Amino acid sequence: MVIIGCGFGGIEAVRSLSRADVEITLVDRTNHHLFQPLLYQVATANLSAPAISGPIRHILRREMQRGNLTILLGEVTGIDTAARSVTLDGREPIAYDHLIVAAGATHSYFGHDDWAAHAPGLKTLADAFTIRRRVLMAFEHAEREADPAKREAWLTFAVVGAGPTGVELAGQLAEIAHHTLHDEFRRIDSRRSRVVLVEGGPRVLGAFSEQLSQRALEQLQSLGVEVRTGASVTAIDAEGLSYAGTDGPQRIAAQTVVWAAGVAASKLGRALAELTGCTLDRAGRVVVEPDLSLAGHPEIHVVGDLAAAQSHPKRGAPTPVPGVSPAAKQMGRTAATNLLRRLRGEPTAAFRYNDYGALATIGRRAAIAMVDLPVFGRVHFSGMPAWLFWLFVHIYFLIGFRNRLVVLSDWAWAYFSFERQARVVAEAEADAHRPAAG
Amino acid sequence: MVIIGCGFGGIEAVRSLSRADVEITLVDRTNHHLFQPLLYQVATANLSAPAISGPIRHILRREMQRGNLTILLGEVTGIDTAARSVTLDGREPIAYDHLIVAAGATHSYFGHDDWAAHAPGLKTLADAFTIRRRVLMAFEHAEREADPAKREAWLTFAVVGAGPTGVELAGQLAEIAHHTLHDEFRRIDSRRSRVVLVEGGPRVLGAFSEQLSQRALEQLQSLGVEVRTGASVTAIDAEGLSYAGTDGPQRIAAQTVVWAAGVAASKLGRALAELTGCTLDRAGRVVVEPDLSLAGHPEIHVVGDLAAAQSHPKRGAPTPVPGVSPAAKQMGRTAATNLLRRLRGEPTAAFRYNDYGALATIGRRAAIAMVDLPVFGRVHFSGMPAWLFWLFVHIYFLIGFRNRLVVLSDWAWAYFSFERQARVVAEAEADAHRPAAG
Repeated sequence: MVIIGCGFGGIEAVRSLSRADVEITLVDRTNHHLFQPLLYQVATANLSAPAISGPIRHILRREMQRGNLTILLGEVTGIDTAARSVTLDGREPIAYDHLIVAAGATHSYFGHDDWAAHAPGLKTLADAFTIRRRVLMAFEHAEREADPAKREAWLTFAVVGAGPTGVELAGQLAEIAHHTLHDEFRRIDSRRSRVVLVEGGPRVLGAFSEQLSQRALEQLQSLGVEVRTGASVTAIDAEGLSYAGTDGPQRIAAQTVVWAAGVAASKLGRALAELTGCTLDRAGRVVVEPDLSLAGHPEIHVVGDLAAAQSHPKRGAPTPVPGVSPAAKQMGRTAATNLLRRLRGEPTAAFRYNDYGALATIGRRAAIAMVDLPVFGRVHFSGMPAWLFWLFVHIYFLIGFRNRLVVLSDWAWAYFSFERQARVVAEAEADAHRPAAG
Repeated sequence: MVIIGCGFGGIEAVRSLSRADVEITLVDRTNHHLFQPLLYQVATANLSAPAISGPIRHILRREMQRGNLTILLGEVTGIDTAARSVTLDGREPIAYDHLIVAAGATHSYFGHDDWAAHAPGLKTLADAFTIRRRVLMAFEHAEREADPAKREAWLTFAVVGAGPTGVELAGQLAEIAHHTLHDEFRRIDSRRSRVVLVEGGPRVLGAFSEQLSQRALEQLQSLGVEVRTGASVTAIDAEGLSYAGTDGPQRIAAQTVVWAAGVAASKLGRALAELTGCTLDRAGRVVVEPDLSLAGHPEIHVVGDLAAAQSHPKRGAPTPVPGVSPAAKQMGRTAATNLLRRLRGEPTAAFRYNDYGALATIGRRAAIAMVDLPVFGRVHFSGMPAWLFWLFVHIYFLIGFRNRLVVLSDWAWAYFSFERQARVVAEAEADAHRPAAG
């Protein structure tokens, strides 16, 4: 069988299958598994890339030693559902009897792909390096800029989208400007930077309750972030962004814009739809059967961010599964189990999402949480307790004993010193946006 | 005054000058100071980039707070020695009364610039990422390759030049092949890789004594490195390299070639020569006066790898200064002192290089050292003692308390686990060599 993608879903599927008497081929286009929930900390120079990513072969070394797992690096360029094979980089077709597609999602500019050059999104390590470079270089440009208006534009940072990633980025940017870089420049005062968080919806972190959302807003504001809700972005260019606000069209002159608004499923979703006639939702996600297989193709399962799945609780109506890492892991496990059931001729089970709650961090000692506890039921809390809880959960789930130690020590250092350990921009990274002479 | 370059020489010059009543502008094209002696460990996935580099503004934060230091990021595109100004990125001219040029060196392909695409050198973080990606991806390509000859070429690594960098790289590559990746592949046995070290001279680490050089050779061979001395490279292309050996022309089919052979001074050396008529040596380094100033231009000092300097001992004839970091630091300090002496109308002093010895590491518990000790004089040793000494010295001189801890813990981990913490290749790094479909 073939598994496409080495995110949370793909890794769990491999782990669940490797003890069975099956032959597994895992393909991915990178050599590492990425702990995506902490990627924003690489983008904001708090963690190095290796701290939140591990080589796939090392993460799966125990599974590898069982002798039934092959890992191949390459980009899936085609799926042939009739011949049951997958093409890697346009070369060798790899035959499969069963296929699990866990190719994830990327960011979407809602049809405005020209915005990508001016407002990078955050999905890969390369994205994180791009954002890190732009943010750190913006202060350097400001230090060299003589024109006050241009200087101000270099010191203005706009984040589009107030979901978890946007809120985390905005909070970190405010901390960089107000603490980390304070006192390290001669001509500018980094504390006079503006961080503007632009959100189309009526409130930040809309997936949380109104009360928690309000707490998050207050915490953002106390960190110095300007929040603009009900603001639909209408244009992004090299000079900044325009939006339609509640009080008419507005313009923010900002040299640094980060995109944290839209998510689009991997283009393998479209490929599957063309081949099998399966339905895609608005975000391009593949609508799957209750057991996570593809309608009419029981040999294909789709999991993780690429799947538009429903959770089937013991009682009550099915509910949509959110695009978070615990859901991806659980889908990976369910797909693997169902696949093995099929091989044994047993009936498959519908996917049930175990929702432990949701967490979002905003900055130093600032976070919100809603958690399902055994006795108390769903509990909402915010501020320092939520932040400590967030810390514990993220360290706990970080893959690999070693990375946990690295991240923990990096965080302890950053917390007490206000310094960031990864404030380094490598020289030759490609970036079309980088102004050649300034 | 203006200081160009934030390597060992530039940093020391700033530190020596910042307490004086002078106005300093430091310019560099990157935002970080790099601990270059450990760059090969970033290239071989043992350390993350932030572990051996620190933001210039943070390293010089105390000097910054004295209020007479401005740091500007940008590439020096011109020096006008008549008008006494430096141009940054073709824009603002920065006036100077005194100038210290510490722009360092890059690698040289001895007129064969077309080799650069096939055999990257190692001077910057970007170079290190390029080599890391090629090395790690070579094993991935081998795993996917069906043709035995091509597979063997993916598993052959050639390092050109057996100076300290070449020897360190070869030793690390052997360890990656024989230990780190062992058991992590299904179709290939990484231990069957070949690491070939190609050297034009008659022996490895030619700057050391013949006896130590012989020890280094034995340690390299016991790590599994094939050493070819007296081998002048005649061609490097996408398939491997050719050389004229002692027994005629030879060919090595290798998909991964690393260049550690030639060093060329920064092109600012040539610019200075054209403007001031100063002499350049064969490597393009600027021949300086005994006090490190430029002949006829006492307001300009050149230090570090860009300077062809002589050491003037208390007794005996002047000797050439080697291109090592302690020499660059000492030159930076001497240039600063001489500059202040000139401002006070005092005579300047000739540069004297304090040579504490030399060290080269080969691999796990393998190194050679020649050290000047107070009572014993020059002592030669190798193996485990030399390796421990090397470890101590490098940790001690690593800039910044924090990085020392990070590197020490990374090394302890790597030593006991044989695992490398930075085995991660970011997705979109530009690399012309990367085969698009394989």
